Amino acid sequence: MGEIMFDRIALIGIGLIGSSIARDVRELGLARHVTISTRSEDTLKRAEELALGTDYTVSAAEAVKDADLVIVSVPVGASESVAQQIAPHLKPGAIVTDVGSTKASVIAQMAPHMPDNVHFIPGHPLAGTEKSGPDAGFAGLFRERWCIFTPLPGTDAEALEKLKDFWRALGSRVDEMDAEHHDKVLAIVSHLPHIIAYNIVGTADDLETVTESEVIKYSASGFRDFTRLAASDPTMWRDVCLHNKDAILEMLARFSEDLASLQRAIRWGEGDKLFELFSRTRAIRRSIVQAGQDVDAPDFGRHALDQKK
Amino acid sequence: MGEIMFDRIALIGIGLIGSSIARDVRELGLARHVTISTRSEDTLKRAEELALGTDYTVSAAEAVKDADLVIVSVPVGASESVAQQIAPHLKPGAIVTDVGSTKASVIAQMAPHMPDNVHFIPGHPLAGTEKSGPDAGFAGLFRERWCIFTPLPGTDAEALEKLKDFWRALGSRVDEMDAEHHDKVLAIVSHLPHIIAYNIVGTADDLETVTESEVIKYSASGFRDFTRLAASDPTMWRDVCLHNKDAILEMLARFSEDLASLQRAIRWGEGDKLFELFSRTRAIRRSIVQAGQDVDAPDFGRHALDQKK
Repeated sequence: MGEIMFDRIALIGIGLIGSSIARDVRELGLARHVTISTRSEDTLKRAEELALGTDYTVSAAEAVKDADLVIVSVPVGASESVAQQIAPHLKPGAIVTDVGSTKASVIAQMAPHMPDNVHFIPGHPLAGTEKSGPDAGFAGLFRERWCIFTPLPGTDAEALEKLKDFWRALGSRVDEMDAEHHDKVLAIVSHLPHIIAYNIVGTADDLETVTESEVIKYSASGFRDFTRLAASDPTMWRDVCLHNKDAILEMLARFSEDLASLQRAIRWGEGDKLFELFSRTRAIRRSIVQAGQDVDAPDFGRHALDQKK
Repeated sequence: MGEIMFDRIALIGIGLIGSSIARDVRELGLARHVTISTRSEDTLKRAEELALGTDYTVSAAEAVKDADLVIVSVPVGASESVAQQIAPHLKPGAIVTDVGSTKASVIAQMAPHMPDNVHFIPGHPLAGTEKSGPDAGFAGLFRERWCIFTPLPGTDAEALEKLKDFWRALGSRVDEMDAEHHDKVLAIVSHLPHIIAYNIVGTADDLETVTESEVIKYSASGFRDFTRLAASDPTMWRDVCLHNKDAILEMLARFSEDLASLQRAIRWGEGDKLFELFSRTRAIRRSIVQAGQDVDAPDFGRHALDQKK
């Protein structure tokens, strides 16, 4: 058990991320009271069945009363609406944070509504799975994962440190950068990969000459690796696309340019050019394994399949 | 131990695939003699150190003498050269097969050289990892994996059955289709995913605003899933691109068209269109998990990472 870090935490939104935070807080004993709020009565009921908090309400305004820490975990497109609802009811001195995958847009949506006497500190835990909803969360989701903060100029150092300590208690490694840079970094390491994955699965789904059952049957030869990302939450990813538009469009333009060049090399049989590209990408993989960000298991998921049997 | 299926097997090429076959044949006792041949003296020496066969030679011509089964496991671009070298020395009645990822091109390269008194039956085991070389192979690589045959019209039924039995002994599930269809199926389930993966890793490598160390540090948020494919053998994949050009260009054109449409939806904020695509791709993932082609582990490789610790 950890020590109590906050008297009351309010969790606005109780999907994969919110419910994982709730489970960690419960297991570690980080708060005396945890108020859970979500617009859907069904989801709220499910959260109560799972005993994810101590108090439950469909009203975000109600939920934030007396909360020392407010964590907004909703699709990024809903940030402004939540900010408007909670702003008049926030406790002076409270820390308000979020977990959104895009930061400039969340800041633009929320900051103007925040009263001067609270600490609004945007954050983004780089953790998740392709599942969604309160049942999908699990304790330990954030362990050994990065949580990036994009504090606004003039942010209170003590409040920021307190928020970082909270995430460290959940097992996260914390980092800090400005919102614009965050959005560019995430556009390449997360948003573009998801969009590409969604796109290739869509392309395969539309073929006339190859049947869907063939795609599924032979998917282990590469296609399978994309389908996991392409099974992620559609609402979340729609909002990411709409709210990190500029950075995503820039990365997409670069990707398409590179792909056109690669396509041309294939058409004209430029073997040396293909070999050069296919060689230099190997080095990045090596660095990722060395950095402990993936295992070196050389078999496309076979170990996992074997263990299932 | 299985029963002896062939008196002598010749393995031309002893990389990941060839050396995995060799290990299975040795463990299962499927042949009295196994001749291993590769152009590189160093690789041949390594194969001997690993005791992968019973005889070793740098001459493919020498290797196929007296062989009842000849398995050519070389990058597909080297198929014609191998066919020319071995053709005059093949034993009457021998089965000659290959493991190449493209089939129409391999048939065009090899069939014209094959004497009438041997059975040339093209094959493709859908198995592999991102590693290469004789040390990368392992027994059991083909277990529960598909092996697709693309026999030419008039192929001897008994010889085909014997070859299928060999692959079944290695644990494979066998399938049959014509070469052109094989090449289209593989273009979407394997070749396009690899090309896209190589491309996105290349795009990330070229960014000025995001550093390579940031890409590596935060790669678990999606990018990582692509780097495994992009670490595959450059020579093999150069040859695949050059030898399945038409099918790959067709799939690339469809993919790019779809991506342009997706890009337009992002630029113009068409949330409904994005949501529709991001929803229908989820169903394919479910089918793949149901078909036993992937596990449902909901956490992007975390289990594997945890087990490593």
